[in-house]
Amino acid sequence: MWHLFQFPLCPFSRKVRLLLGEKGVGYELVRESPWQRRDEFIDMNPTGQTPVMTQADRDLILIDSSAICEYFEETTDKAQLIGGTAANRAEVRRLVSWFDHQFYGDVVAPLMHERMKKRLVDRAAPDARILREAMKNAHSHFDYLDYLLDHRTWLAGATLSLADLAAAAHISVADYLGGIDFKGHELVKRWYAGLKSRPSFRPLLSERMEVIKPPEHYDKVDF
Amino acid sequence: MWHLFQFPLCPFSRKVRLLLGEKGVGYELVRESPWQRRDEFIDMNPTGQTPVMTQADRDLILIDSSAICEYFEETTDKAQLIGGTAANRAEVRRLVSWFDHQFYGDVVAPLMHERMKKRLVDRAAPDARILREAMKNAHSHFDYLDYLLDHRTWLAGATLSLADLAAAAHISVADYLGGIDFKGHELVKRWYAGLKSRPSFRPLLSERMEVIKPPEHYDKVDF
Ligand SMILES: N[C@@H](CCC(=O)N[C@@H](CS)C(=O)NCC(=O)O)C(=O)O
Ligand SMILES: N[C@@H](CCC(=O)N[C@@H](CS)C(=O)NCC(=O)O)C(=O)O
Repeated sequence: MWHLFQFPLCPFSRKVRLLLGEKGVGYELVRESPWQRRDEFIDMNPTGQTPVMTQADRDLILIDSSAICEYFEETTDKAQLIGGTAANRAEVRRLVSWFDHQFYGDVVAPLMHERMKKRLVDRAAPDARILREAMKNAHSHFDYLDYLLDHRTWLAGATLSLADLAAAAHISVADYLGGIDFKGHELVKRWYAGLKSRPSFRPLLSERMEVIKPPEHYDKVDF
Repeated sequence: MWHLFQFPLCPFSRKVRLLLGEKGVGYELVRESPWQRRDEFIDMNPTGQTPVMTQADRDLILIDSSAICEYFEETTDKAQLIGGTAANRAEVRRLVSWFDHQFYGDVVAPLMHERMKKRLVDRAAPDARILREAMKNAHSHFDYLDYLLDHRTWLAGATLSLADLAAAAHISVADYLGGIDFKGHELVKRWYAGLKSRPSFRPLLSERMEVIKPPEHYDKVDF
């Protein structure tokens, strides 16, 4: 049995969970709050970051969400998520990296810092200027997604791929933290509604992070 | 013929070049300075970041160093660099990600900002405190590399892999910018000397970035 060390609002862990869900790989969640810098966790992963996956006997430790996704893509047959030609696969990986770096850095990380970390750890109020900036960034990044979805059924092409799951992972965390406004982004909204109704996504949407409440529309497929 | 858009001190482009060199894939360098935010370049890559690779006819555009490396790993037979079992490959990818994020963020990016960007773009003096901090980070990260190399011939295991090339790419940029002191890190030094003498590395070591001069030992295999 696999164990996945994570916390409910870690977007990189969500990406892994969506992939495992699509592939039907079973796992148990282990709650890990990286900001606590637990010694046993740092012994497993020197960066102290989630997600980490282990086999119950700790014989194999997988670290880094991209390495984990590639591992399960290589070792399972069901639901190819980095598929197609080498050029298609490069496009999937480009977009995954775009969400993990640009969208995370410009939108998700500041929201997590202001609305989660400050609340749970620093007991401080969020900085309204930083929140506004993150929401503005989300809008301009959604313009790019609208453009992609105007040309393609799914973000990286004709079929669902890890790019869609990475996107949904990051967007869902930003949405939970009140940073997303879908107004004016009909294509993104329709595509995201489709993802929300997938069985792989339902368990994530029903989870809550202590003390922090998502907006009303967060887990609704119709929003 | 492939074109690689890059500048001499871009560590992500260096990683790609080392991989192409090991695999014997031919390419032409195109100088791109991302801080100029050239319109034609941003049309190709919305993030405006190097490296980007194109085929001469622009039919195929590859973006993001990891996506590029995986592409050539999948489409060439010579010199497997993400090889072995799925677990081995996960370890290679974990370490590449560690260099691209931790080592880059803690060591290479601050050195590039203080000693390259400030010099070329802002015409300002480097901040000595930030330089000292980056060099201290390099030392503690080298402790981790020493630990790995005490157990393994190459960073990810028994054979040369993309992890070694990513490491060499980042270390070489930090070394060029005067941020590396190998004292007390004999294992890292011996391993790096081995990499420096590879034919794939020689062309990189002989290149210079305008106005910025590397230290004496930078391109010496004996240092
Ligand atoms: N490259 C890593 C990034 C993981 C990451 O940034 N995780 C965050 C939580 S969402 C974390 O653990 N942050 C704590 C820290 O960096 O100390 C991956 O893709 O797995
Ligand atoms: N995830 C990208 C990162 C590339 C990157 O950060 N490139 C730097 C140069 S070393 C860059 O273009 N920076 C300019 C910018 O971010 O605007 C990759 O692996 O290719």
